[in-house]
Amino acid sequence: MTKIVAIAIHGGAGTILKSLLSPELELEYITALTIAVNKGYLILNQGGSSIEAAEASVVSLEDCPLFNAGRGAVFNAVGGHEMDAAIMEGSELRCGAVSSVQNVKNPVRLAKSVMEKSEHVFLGGEGAAEFGRLNGIEFQNDDYFYVEHRYQQWLDVKDSDSYSLDHSVAPAEKKFGTVGAVALDMYGNLAAATSTGGMTNKKFGRIGDSPIIGAGTYANNKTCAISCTGHGELFIRSVVAYDISCLMEYKGYSLKHACDLVVYDKLVRVGGEGGLVAIDAKGNIELPFNSKGMYRASVDLEGNVKVLIYK
Amino acid sequence: MTKIVAIAIHGGAGTILKSLLSPELELEYITALTIAVNKGYLILNQGGSSIEAAEASVVSLEDCPLFNAGRGAVFNAVGGHEMDAAIMEGSELRCGAVSSVQNVKNPVRLAKSVMEKSEHVFLGGEGAAEFGRLNGIEFQNDDYFYVEHRYQQWLDVKDSDSYSLDHSVAPAEKKFGTVGAVALDMYGNLAAATSTGGMTNKKFGRIGDSPIIGAGTYANNKTCAISCTGHGELFIRSVVAYDISCLMEYKGYSLKHACDLVVYDKLVRVGGEGGLVAIDAKGNIELPFNSKGMYRASVDLEGNVKVLIYK
Repeated sequence: MTKIVAIAIHGGAGTILKSLLSPELELEYITALTIAVNKGYLILNQGGSSIEAAEASVVSLEDCPLFNAGRGAVFNAVGGHEMDAAIMEGSELRCGAVSSVQNVKNPVRLAKSVMEKSEHVFLGGEGAAEFGRLNGIEFQNDDYFYVEHRYQQWLDVKDSDSYSLDHSVAPAEKKFGTVGAVALDMYGNLAAATSTGGMTNKKFGRIGDSPIIGAGTYANNKTCAISCTGHGELFIRSVVAYDISCLMEYKGYSLKHACDLVVYDKLVRVGGEGGLVAIDAKGNIELPFNSKGMYRASVDLEGNVKVLIYK
Repeated sequence: MTKIVAIAIHGGAGTILKSLLSPELELEYITALTIAVNKGYLILNQGGSSIEAAEASVVSLEDCPLFNAGRGAVFNAVGGHEMDAAIMEGSELRCGAVSSVQNVKNPVRLAKSVMEKSEHVFLGGEGAAEFGRLNGIEFQNDDYFYVEHRYQQWLDVKDSDSYSLDHSVAPAEKKFGTVGAVALDMYGNLAAATSTGGMTNKKFGRIGDSPIIGAGTYANNKTCAISCTGHGELFIRSVVAYDISCLMEYKGYSLKHACDLVVYDKLVRVGGEGGLVAIDAKGNIELPFNSKGMYRASVDLEGNVKVLIYK
């Protein structure tokens, strides 16, 4: 009997072109995505919940310095790291989110702790960190978050007023650094999780779509689970994740139809570059993006593994 | 010729009963609501925009110590004031939001400044305040925010682990202190604005639904403008404001039908106490709430003024 479990993850979208990645770096990305998606899939296959699976995959991506989340989070305007994350489960619509947290090893774990142990949904800044310290969340010093290529990215822009979404190997590359996962477990429950370091050189405590329930992260067993990556401001204005859910619930669209309309039509019309990973209650998976590429991986209902970077 | 302008405001919902308000206090509320709604209406009538009108009404409520926003913001766990606000216009879906800002006289003005002068949508904490200082936003010292009955509310709970949503004159009273406005201007543009001081004795940088685009605040000329007040966590999970918009856009519901379903059915089923003010592109106004009362006022298309507190 086929177990009805499935999972999809992303490691960010943007101007990701084969010509911009060395074969060695490409292999590193492929390996990291493969490990991350399998960590979640293993949990699902052993009877774990979709929340645990989404968390495990996102933790794996947060621990990898290649992605803009957790350890690999970009530098903000004062040379620190401010991270956002959210998690949501689709049976009772419980969720937790944190914004602008510093020195938290795995912001997605903190978001899960908010969901499970607090009466609140969304905690910000030092208050969120304080909640984490009281609830056994692991912290790391600044050295842990020091990643050479992130530091170089920051040096390139730190004396300017500009910020970048995840400025990487080449000036031509515009990348929306975020990681995320969506999963369906064998009990029929959906979950979504997203984590990000935001924009290089960001100022003013900027918060993107990742921790906003309905914008960057959403899960509902009636419809779908979604984790987004892209130009956060436009994803917030478009309430992207809940829009896909509403198109399914209120218009009867399939997951694919809803994702296609939102990512390839509605977002394109407002200049909202990026993509998302989506899964519905039947285990259908969609990985749409309107940018050049999106780091992504999935394991479908039949156990087929996909790990992709480019269009 | 009747000018097609209309406006509605709220000053919070909750266990607001005639038996809990003295006639003098009731009159103060009625007067403050009347002044606030007329400030916005005057702007609309003189050809101003719905954004300006919504801002003016919310500023009026923020400046009044009766309401939990701006000057009357409740005390947090360390005896300070942390305020959230958001504003959105319905023609191009531009929006601005701030969370956990301190000493800002009118958080809604700061949110509007984020919308108009920043490339971002959502700024949090000290970073948001810094943005405000660079953009001419008015600040006030702690004395300005000292309101005797708020301080007493805080003293009642400060040595406990409990927090309250806007604990007021009697223990029986549970109030969701938030202010907000929605407006339609003579150019056919909708706008929504919301501002709050959050929960008395709140800890951990808690953020409610007010600054979350799609949850507590939303505007779209195609459908409606919404400003919510209630148990923020449940309003976030339910993506309340955008849900009403989607029910109109995707199911063809009227504003009233959509509001009724969300406030009296969907929110009630998850224990989401509160209410909202809503206006559609034709100027229809709805002021639904599932709590005992909601401070509210409106001026409809015919210029009829309503100022109400109880059911």
